[in-house]
Order: sequence, then C-alpha cells, then structure tokens
Amino acid sequence: MLSSRQPCNPRDDALLRQRFTRFQRLRHSSHTALCLPQDLLLAAAFVSDAQYNRNIPFKTSPEAVRLYHLYNHWMMRIATYFFIFLNLSLALFEEPAVYPLPFLATSVLEVLCLLVFLGRLTHFAKVTLHNVFWKDTKNICIMVAILLSLTDLAIYGVLRMYDVRSIRWSRIVRPIFLINFAESRQIRRAFRSIRNTLPEITYVFLLFMFSLLMFSLMALKLFGERNLQTAEGLPYFRNYLEIVFDLYVLVTTANSPDVMMPAFDFSSWYTLFFIAFVIINTYIFMSLFLAVVYNNYKKHLKNEIRKLAYMKRRKMIEAFNLLKEEEGEQFVVREARWKQLVKLVAPDTSSSHRELLLCISDDEQKGFVDKKSFVQLADLLNIQVVTLRVRRHPLARWVPALYGSAPSQLLRRVVRHRAFVWTYDAIILINAIFIALDEESPYISYAEWVFLSLYIIEILLKVYTYEPREFFGWKFVWSLVSTVLTLKYNSQQILDIVFILRVLRLIRIVDSIQRFQVIMNTLINIVPTMLTFGGLTLVVYCVFAIIGMELFHGKIQYFPANSNAPHALECGNPALKDSLFARGKYCKNNFNNFASSFIVLMELTVVNQWHDILSVQPAKLYFIAFHIVMVIIIVNIFVSFILEAFFVEYSLEKSEVETAIERKIQELGMGVQEDELQYEQLLDNMESAEHELEGEGGTKPQSKGLVFKIASKRYRTVDALLQRMFEAEIPLEDEGLSFEEILNLSPTSAVPRSPSSESTA
Amino acid sequence: MLSSRQPCNPRDDALLRQRFTRFQRLRHSSHTALCLPQDLLLAAAFVSDAQYNRNIPFKTSPEAVRLYHLYNHWMMRIATYFFIFLNLSLALFEEPAVYPLPFLATSVLEVLCLLVFLGRLTHFAKVTLHNVFWKDTKNICIMVAILLSLTDLAIYGVLRMYDVRSIRWSRIVRPIFLINFAESRQIRRAFRSIRNTLPEITYVFLLFMFSLLMFSLMALKLFGERNLQTAEGLPYFRNYLEIVFDLYVLVTTANSPDVMMPAFDFSSWYTLFFIAFVIINTYIFMSLFLAVVYNNYKKHLKNEIRKLAYMKRRKMIEAFNLLKEEEGEQFVVREARWKQLVKLVAPDTSSSHRELLLCISDDEQKGFVDKKSFVQLADLLNIQVVTLRVRRHPLARWVPALYGSAPSQLLRRVVRHRAFVWTYDAIILINAIFIALDEESPYISYAEWVFLSLYIIEILLKVYTYEPREFFGWKFVWSLVSTVLTLKYNSQQILDIVFILRVLRLIRIVDSIQRFQVIMNTLINIVPTMLTFGGLTLVVYCVFAIIGMELFHGKIQYFPANSNAPHALECGNPALKDSLFARGKYCKNNFNNFASSFIVLMELTVVNQWHDILSVQPAKLYFIAFHIVMVIIIVNIFVSFILEAFFVEYSLEKSEVETAIERKIQELGMGVQEDELQYEQLLDNMESAEHELEGEGGTKPQSKGLVFKIASKRYRTVDALLQRMFEAEIPLEDEGLSFEEILNLSPTSAVPRSPSSESTA
Repeated sequence: MLSSRQPCNPRDDALLRQRFTRFQRLRHSSHTALCLPQDLLLAAAFVSDAQYNRNIPFKTSPEAVRLYHLYNHWMMRIATYFFIFLNLSLALFEEPAVYPLPFLATSVLEVLCLLVFLGRLTHFAKVTLHNVFWKDTKNICIMVAILLSLTDLAIYGVLRMYDVRSIRWSRIVRPIFLINFAESRQIRRAFRSIRNTLPEITYVFLLFMFSLLMFSLMALKLFGERNLQTAEGLPYFRNYLEIVFDLYVLVTTANSPDVMMPAFDFSSWYTLFFIAFVIINTYIFMSLFLAVVYNNYKKHLKNEIRKLAYMKRRKMIEAFNLLKEEEGEQFVVREARWKQLVKLVAPDTSSSHRELLLCISDDEQKGFVDKKSFVQLADLLNIQVVTLRVRRHPLARWVPALYGSAPSQLLRRVVRHRAFVWTYDAIILINAIFIALDEESPYISYAEWVFLSLYIIEILLKVYTYEPREFFGWKFVWSLVSTVLTLKYNSQQILDIVFILRVLRLIRIVDSIQRFQVIMNTLINIVPTMLTFGGLTLVVYCVFAIIGMELFHGKIQYFPANSNAPHALECGNPALKDSLFARGKYCKNNFNNFASSFIVLMELTVVNQWHDILSVQPAKLYFIAFHIVMVIIIVNIFVSFILEAFFVEYSLEKSEVETAIERKIQELGMGVQEDELQYEQLLDNMESAEHELEGEGGTKPQSKGLVFKIASKRYRTVDALLQRMFEAEIPLEDEGLSFEEILNLSPTSAVPRSPSSESTA
Repeated sequence: MLSSRQPCNPRDDALLRQRFTRFQRLRHSSHTALCLPQDLLLAAAFVSDAQYNRNIPFKTSPEAVRLYHLYNHWMMRIATYFFIFLNLSLALFEEPAVYPLPFLATSVLEVLCLLVFLGRLTHFAKVTLHNVFWKDTKNICIMVAILLSLTDLAIYGVLRMYDVRSIRWSRIVRPIFLINFAESRQIRRAFRSIRNTLPEITYVFLLFMFSLLMFSLMALKLFGERNLQTAEGLPYFRNYLEIVFDLYVLVTTANSPDVMMPAFDFSSWYTLFFIAFVIINTYIFMSLFLAVVYNNYKKHLKNEIRKLAYMKRRKMIEAFNLLKEEEGEQFVVREARWKQLVKLVAPDTSSSHRELLLCISDDEQKGFVDKKSFVQLADLLNIQVVTLRVRRHPLARWVPALYGSAPSQLLRRVVRHRAFVWTYDAIILINAIFIALDEESPYISYAEWVFLSLYIIEILLKVYTYEPREFFGWKFVWSLVSTVLTLKYNSQQILDIVFILRVLRLIRIVDSIQRFQVIMNTLINIVPTMLTFGGLTLVVYCVFAIIGMELFHGKIQYFPANSNAPHALECGNPALKDSLFARGKYCKNNFNNFASSFIVLMELTVVNQWHDILSVQPAKLYFIAFHIVMVIIIVNIFVSFILEAFFVEYSLEKSEVETAIERKIQELGMGVQEDELQYEQLLDNMESAEHELEGEGGTKPQSKGLVFKIASKRYRTVDALLQRMFEAEIPLEDEGLSFEEILNLSPTSAVPRSPSSESTA
C-alpha cells in the first residue's frame, strides 16, 4: 500500500532531494494513499525540470502550502463536519425544543459555529488565489449565509429582550453550510443534477397539472350537483379548488378509495371516471416523471464521469509530453526517467515492486515505456500489492505431534469444510424458527441453552483450527462478546439483540448462492451513494421541518394514553373531534419539535395517509411543495440510481470490463481477486505483508510471491465502474480537448466514439 | 394505397394469369393493404417459376386455401372476439350476478360459445398441416379448456337438479380463450415476457422475503413484550405471522403510519426501525423489482423485434436469390422481372407509381435493381402515395366575384391564421375558468350564451373559408352536433358534457408547443400498446374476480344510505362494527358480483387502504398473490413500457432514424410528412386521390404531383421504431442465420453488430 508512513530515502543528488521536498509539499494526495493523476503530472514537471505551475489553484509559497495542508488535514475536516452538524442540530434545542436549552446557550453555540465557518472560509481564502476564490459561488453563498444568520440572531435577540416574539427565519439557511463546504462534493453534484433535470420535469409537471385541472372540471360537472356527501358527512366535490386538491391527493393514491366511495355508492358507472384518472395520472404521469428523472440522471451521471475520465487521460498525456523522448518513430519515456518519476510520486514502493510495475509497463523489455502504457501509470500505482507467506498455528509450534496427528487433521479439515459453515447456518435458522414460533414455552428457553452451547463449541473449534491472528478479526471478537454477554447477563433483551445480529449471518448463505450475486452486488454497491441521498434528504427535511414548525407548531398536542387533560382524545384540538386523525391516534404526528417534524416528513414521503396527516393543517401548498420536491424529484432520483446500479451490475456480470492493466496482471499470473481472499482456505495461508522485500530489488518478482491484489468487483461503486467503461473507450490520440473544453462538456455534445449508444438505452 | 379493391388486369400470357390467380389465392395479406415480405417471397417464387412451398404452414389445395381465407376473414375474427367476450361476460349474469339470468340461459350461452370455439378450432385444423396443428400448445390448451368447461358445466347442472350446490371452478379457465386464439398475439407475447422474467423476479422476491422475515423477527423481539395496543385496542406485534403480514402491507405503504404509531407513542426511537424497514424494503427492494422487470422487458422486447427484423431481411434475400441474374460482378434483378414481381404482389399500383418505385430502386437507371435496393422493396411498397390537386370552394364556383373580393379574402386569411385558432382556444379557456369559478351566479348562465354564439360564429366562418369536403371531418360533425345539442336540449348535463369535450381542444394548444412534443408523442405512442395491457389486466382480473367471488361472496352487504336493515352500518356483518372498513363506508367494496369484484381489484391495484379492504376477508394469501401478480409484475411491466417508450421517443427526437428509402424519397423531393398534412394551410390545397394517373405511365412522375406520404413520426409505435433501428443495423451480407436459428434466437446470444450496446443501458 502506498501510504506515506515510511520516510523516503533519496540516494540521489541534492537537486533531486530538493525537488522531492518541493514536490512533497505541493502534491494533492499527501493525506491519502492514492496516487492522483494531478500528482503524477506535478511529479513529471519536477522530473523534467519544467516550470510547471498551471492548474494549481492555490498559492505555492511554502507558507501557503503549509496552510493548504493544514486546511486539508483530516482533523480540520472532521471539525468542520462536527460544527455543521452541531449547527443543524441546534434546532433540537431551540424553541420548539426536544431538549430545551436557554436562548443564550443556543445563540452562543450558533455564534461559535458561525465563527468556525468564517474561520474555515478565511483559511480557504488564504490558500487560494484571489480571483479563484471570489469567482466561486460557494464562498459567496457561505458568506451571505453567515451574515444572514448573524443579522437574524441579533434582531431576534433584541426583540426578545423587549418581549416581542419574532420568527427565526434564518434557520432555513443552515443547510447551506452542509451543501457548500468543499467537502460535500457529492451532495453538490446531486443538487446540480436536480437543477439540470428541473426544466424537463417542469414540462411534464405542466402537462400533468393541465390533466389534473381538466379532470377536476369534469368531476365538478359530474358530481357537483348530486348533493353527495363524504363518509364524514361533508359536501362532496362542490368546490373546484377542493376537487383539485382531492384529485392531487388521489394521484399519490393516499385517499383511494375514500375519495371514490360517495360516487361509487351513487352509481357504479362513476368508477370509470376514477379508473381513467388513476391510469392517466397515477400510472402514466408518475411513470413519466420517473422516465424524465431517470433519463436526465443517466445523462448527467455519464457526463460527469466522462469529464473525469477525460481529465485523467489529459493529465496523463501532459505528463507524458513533459517526459517524452524520441525513440525510433515514436515518442517514449525512458526507463531512468520513469523510475525517477515513480520514486518521486510513490516513494514508499519497494524496488521489487517498482521492477514489477516496469515489467508490466515495458512489456517487451525494450528499456522504455510507450504512451499507451504510460497513461495507465496512475491506475497501476493504485493497485495494492501483497506478498504471500505461510504462517503456522501456535499449537503446531508448541505441540506439533498432537496438532499434526490424523484425528486432529481430520477435525481441522471438517471445520474448514464448507459444510461446517452450512451446518451452523442451519442451526441459526432452526434457532430463528424456534423463537419465532413461540417463546413462552419452557422448551424454548431450554433449547436456547442448547443453541448457546453449540455456539461456544463453534468458537472453540475455530480457535483450534485457524491461525489466531487471522481469526481475531471483528467476527471473532463479535462471536466472543456476544457469547459472553449472553452468559453473563441472561436478560432477554441482550439475548435478543445478540441473537438478531447472529441471524444476520444468514445473509452469508444467501450471498454464497450464485443466482443472488447480481442483486447482492447491487445492494452492496449502492451503500456509499446512499450517504449522498442521506445528505440530500437531510437538507430538504431540515428546510421543510423548520418551515413546518413555524407554521404548525402547537396545533396538535400529544397526551400519554391515560391522560386526563381536556381534549386528550382530540389531540388537544377540539376541531379534531371524530376526525380520522384523532381516531387513528395520530396525535404524535405533529410539528411541535424538530424530531417530530422529521418523522412526520418521513411519513409524508411514504405518502400514505397524506391527507389525514395534513387535513388538520391549513397550508395545503406546503404539503404539495413537499410532495413535489421529495417524492416526485428526490425519490425518483433515488429509484433512478438503484435502476442504474442494477443495470451496470447486470451488464458487468455478462461482460467483464477490465482495464488493460488488470488483463496484463492476470496474464503474468500475478493477480489475486479480493473475492478469493475472503475464503478461509486461502486466507489461512496468506499474510498481507507490505514492503517485505524492501531492498532486495532486481530479482524476478514472481519468485518472491509478490502478487497484485485487484479490487473486488463487488466493492466498486457505480461511478468507478462507469469511469472504467469510459476510459476504455477514449482513444489514445485524443488530445484535442483542453481542460476548459472538458469542464464545459455538455451532456449532449458529441464526443468521439461515445462508449454507449444512448439511442435505445 | 395497396388495397385489393380494384381487380387486377393482367395483360400477359395465360401462364402469368394462372400464376397470378394461384398467387392471389395463397398470399397472406389478402385482407390487408400491407405488402408482407412473406408475400413478396411467394410472388418471387411464382415469377421465377420455382416450386416454392416452404414456409407455408397451411395446405395449398384450392379448397384449403378458400377455407384459409374464410378463416382469416374479418367477419370471422370479429365473431370470434365477440364470443370470447360473451363467454367472459357470462360472469355478469351467472350467480352471483349483476344482472341475474336463469341458469338455463347462461348455460345455453356458454355451450354456444364453446361450440363456436370448437368450430373455430376445427376450421383452423382443416387449413393447417397436421403436424403443425398438433405441435402447437395453443390448440391443445383450447381443447382442454373446452373439455374442462363442458365437464364442469355438466356436473354442476346435474348436482343442481338434485339441489346440491357446487362450485363452478371451470370459470377461471375462460380467459384461456382470450389468450390462446391466434388473434391475441400481443397478449401472448406479454405473457411470454412475464414467463421469461419470472426466474429473476423469483430471486429478488426470495431475498425480499428473507429481509421481511428478518425484520419481522426483530419486530417481534423489539415490540412483542411491551404490551402495546393498536388504535383499535388490539394487541400489537405479538404473533409472528401477523407481524410478517403487517410488515408486508407496510411495504405497499398501505398501513403507514398506522402500523408505526403504537411504537412511536411508546418511544420516538422506535421509528428508526420503521425508517430502516421502509428504506430497505419499500424503496430499495421495490425499485429492484422494477429494475429486474425493466431489464427483462427491454431484453425480450429487443429480442422479439430483432427476430422480426431478421425474418424480414431473410425473406427478402431469399426472394432476391430466386430472381437474381448475373450482371457483371454482382447478382441483380433485372427490370422486367422486377416489374412482373411488383405487378403480381401489388396489382393495384398505377404504372406511374411503379415507375417511381423503380426510379428509387434503380437509382442510376441501369436497368436492374441490386440486392441492397431489392431488400427494401417491401417497405417501399408499403409507403402511401398521394397526388396533389387543387380543389376550390363551392362559393368560389358559384359567386366567384364576391368570394374573391378583397374583404372576403381578408376574412379567409384571418380565419386561416393561427391566431384565429388561438383566439378560440383562449375563449374556451376563459369559458372553463368561468364555469370552474362559480356556476350559481346568473352572470355565468348569461355568459354561457355569449360563448355559445361565439362557437356558432366559429363554425360559420370555417364553413365559409374551408372547402367543405375537407372540413366535413369528424371535427366539424362534432362541432355541429355539439352546438345543435346545446341549442335544442339546454339541459345542464348535455351542456356540460359538450363543454368538457370542447375543453379537450385545449390539448391542441399544449401539443403545438415544441417543448411538450416528446412527452405528447410518448403519450400518443403508448395508446395502442395500452390495449395489450388492458387484455393482460382483464385476464388477471377475471381469474382473481372469479376466485374472489367464490371465497368472499356475501360476506359484506351494501345497503343504501337510509336503509333500516339490521347492521346496515356494519355492512350487514356484525363483526365489522366499529371497524375502519365500516366507518369509511366501504360496504360497496365487496365480492358480491363480477362488476364489484373488478372495482375492488382495481382498488387493490392502487394499493392504498389495502389492509382495510382485506381486513374483513380471511384469506390473506389471496391478497398477497394478487399483489405479487398485479403490482409487482404487471404494473412494473407497464411502468417499464412507459419508460422505454419515453426513452425511444427521446432518442428519436435527437437522432432521426430514417430508413434508406425515406432518405432517398426526400432526396428526390417527393416526400411529404403526414405532420405537414395536418395543417389546414396545406390540406386545403390537396386531395388524396389514388390511382389518379392510372394508365398514363411512362412520364416523369414528379410532374404529375405524385408524392409519397411518409408515415408521421408520432404515430409510430415503440415496436415499429425499434424494428427500424434494428433493420438499419443488419448487414446486407448476413444470410448466415436460418429461419430456425432466427426463431430460436435467445436474448443473450451474440448477434453480429448488435445495434445498441446493452452494456451501460
């Protein structure tokens, strides 16, 4: 691994040492183990002695570089996130509060947060060039948000002293900090994607509204004069605007079939109207929304990834151009320069590792690296390297005779066999069935002890069989802790939780079945991106929760089950007497504090009972706005994302997308898939020893058991997979696009040999 | 148009005449205006005098051919459909009936239907070769279904005579007739697509069930011992199977947030369990179902269409091979043979039309048609041909001076102007707003008369401006009828309906805006395929309705609002006292007859209030089965279909997919888009006169005003668009695949130069 723990040991002249120090200061990836194309380009500039300062958006004085590294330090980043979330969670403590704190405390905290943001921004301004800093809307946004928050806080504080209540309206700008600090790149990308989708969504929405208004007009004509009544005895379909709203709710299916029943009771034929309405609006238009969102999502995702791939290729080609020398008819990078470059950019690699890389890059041992191999260098440097070594069980060292005896070997073979794992999975399954069936019976608690002893036997057998260091992973610790917990505190609660977590082991059975692989891979791949959607949802929920609290605070009260308060059954609101809301015991669904608001908004996202929840709130526009933003846009983007993840995974299963590097490594027989490493059979003969061969360079790497650990297919994100697909398609000669052109690449612009025809997709 | 109305007039020798007669007898497309590749192949066989009998699955004796044409006669087809739907609608008249008929009447009708089906099948057997007939599972299915129905009917009848009630279980086989008669090709294709999707759906479903069972187990552990109660005072989350069912319903979102409220009331933290459940099961798994269904839908749609395109190409190449002669280095079809062929296959085309076709096929006037042009012949023959001619208004003939005067011309120009249409659209819009606002006010009814007179003025102006024959389309008739109706019966009802249909004219405004075109085209394109989904839904509903009636008939009764019957408020079922079902006045949602069952099933498809509707029915498995079949499979296929339609339309908007023919016609300047024909400006100078130039052949066709009418983009179905895309991609030399290979083409088999990379789609 290319971590920077081990200090570099440059045995070259003072110039190289000086260059190296300067390069180390300027490189981007000082805090990550990754080798970025940007760094390779910078290193190439140092190696070739070119004055290369382009594309460095920060100042290059030693002071500025030190500040820049401080800015990027992980502690600083975590601190920023901490204050962003502190600022957001202030809503929990401000009135209306979940955990009330005095106004002074929350305002001091808020000022503190704002000062931290201001400090972070100032820090950023110090490391960035002036014109770059002031051109960036992100920074302006943050400044405006800080100013607004402070002004609002001051006004509110002053008014409060004179006992005048005003609204803390600036609280809705707080999510801006989450969006606009440079670390939230993914969330900004998601917002950009939404912004790009908006025009097309708008056209569909206008058509949909047109259809809704037309149907409402028809409903007014058909039912308005029949004097029908709803189940609650209210007039049915009399007022045009109410019809529009009722039918809008029907699109969400929330009031089906209630909204239809009075007309249905009057005549069965009227159901035809509602059937037509549901087919056109709920099924066709809602699918169209999904189609538009999905189409745009795919288009912009591909565009962003294409940009990244082009950027990378471009930088690698620039680096090549800096280092190239003529060799026969082509330009190449000679071995000496190539080695200098690799040493500079990845000082921790062993020389044998370097030899191996050269062996892959310079396939035919010609003493130089051609352009095609050179552009893959960044990927090559990012592949993990491990060496294999056999490590023996301690018992085999202490009592070799006993441990090596035939019965012991048999026992170990049994434990290592797949059937052993399956047996224990079956035991867990039986345990699950036992518990699900009935838990009052005394036999069950007796059986519980049987199962517990079986689990302890499993742990002992595994300790006996496997080398402890490999087994002492979290799996083992977990097994041990859970068993100890169960033994010591035999309370039902802990037993249950322990047991449920044990049941999760059953996922492994499912996972081992070939047929489920595509689905499981999709599920695993979407986890990282789920965080982006989490952030997106958080932003939308925060804004709507804060507005909701201002609008609906205190309208509904929750009383515990046996409260004697007046109107306890009507949620403290006499107007709710006999309403479906009170009857369904929905009183806790209110906007009385930040946490409750979040839960109500979650319920509104699920859509059901929408109209019941909102029937007691006057502002229907608020709910329609939330539905449009959350359900029509964000949920559809989420669905699009899952669709795309599945399709990428599915197409990958059929046609392996390998880069040239991976293929070459496989050809040389030095590859090992991470998947394979998961099996105990392989693992217990291996050890991940890095830099084991440091200093022994020059020999054939194969003989040393050095292998490349290729990233498992299943832990690649959709983005990484797509980027790989695009890279394979960019022609090598493609130097035409400049950085500016790449950044301004529009989704529709024709790019030579677009990798996937979007025509029928 | 290539209809067969005008008898052919072969001026050739007796042999050709005899061949022609035999060909006419054997050709497939005798009842349609289309020229099928199959017919072209047959005609080529006759022209080349080859003994060509392959690929004719029916007997070729004159008697058999006559029977075959009778079998395919449109009257026979309509009769078959009539009896299929009569048979299906028998459920309306049988107990439990919507319109009760005596048992004797319905059984006589059913026997009649079955006899008709048997007759149709026998007819088919007579025209088909024996081994082909008996190999076809469709025919076996129909025979078994007839046998089962008759047996069941007999048993039921006999038992009824002895007053023993039994179940008419054979009623669920009735939809088999709808699926299996040869005319329902589309529905069978949809069923095939579902069958192909089932394995993958099953894997996702198993994973989903696994997740559901795990969450249920957790719920049992978390909430089972807290002694919580639901809003109705029932125990909450005690029994494992009930939890599984409740959580299954939560996946459909139908019981959200009710199912959460007791836990939420106990502690807000418990909502996290439900949030996790909804994210994983409702959002991720339901999206996965859509992904799997969509992926399979696309795969199989493309495969079927690829098969069709290959078939067509194959037949055209075989026809070419039958007719080819050597010319220089290549094989060609000489002009004489080509003309013979066209005359045979399309005897109604004028000779000028034939010249034009030859001019397109033999681009460089070389006296022969090469392979590339020949394979496009079928498409070429299917392009409509029209001639342009100016036709004058009757008034211009009667009072030319007055009609041609300056004010008259100005008036006509005004009426023809787009602004005139827009003005009237605006008037309708204002009228709509007037009505929506308030209809009790006297001003409104006064305004109604103003609007009515405006509409009459519109009609008069249009009659004055446009040539009557072109204006007397259904639009004019509709305007007239509606106005007359409004004048004569000034009842509010008719006025309303007339008005609503007038409001539909507003769609035209929307349609004329460029931005809405893709969406509108998608909406128009999906209409034909909607019928297939209608058929599919009908089949599923029929089966479930019949089962539902047997299971739940009479459990719930509906009483009119002021009924004095006991338990009228509880839907005639004391068990429903105080239930949400009775409170929501859902009594009419029952399985008491066929029509009600359909409406209940429709409500279950929409999913909402699912649990309320089914809480009174014991058989939960029935509802889960319906949910899986209807919502998870069919609705998802419907959504997939809309997604695909939108994507095809969208990609088409950007990159025009034209066949070589259309391009050539456009090059020759003889094309006219149907779109353009829609504008009145063009229409009133044109007349669709066919065969106008019959017998004048040999002259330059351009001078005659002969133009090709190219099908409008917007009325193409998704299938047609995709087929066109595939055709463009099949290489001309591709003769490798035999008919059998094409028919057995699997969706995953590699086809040379697959037109759309499915890799990232």
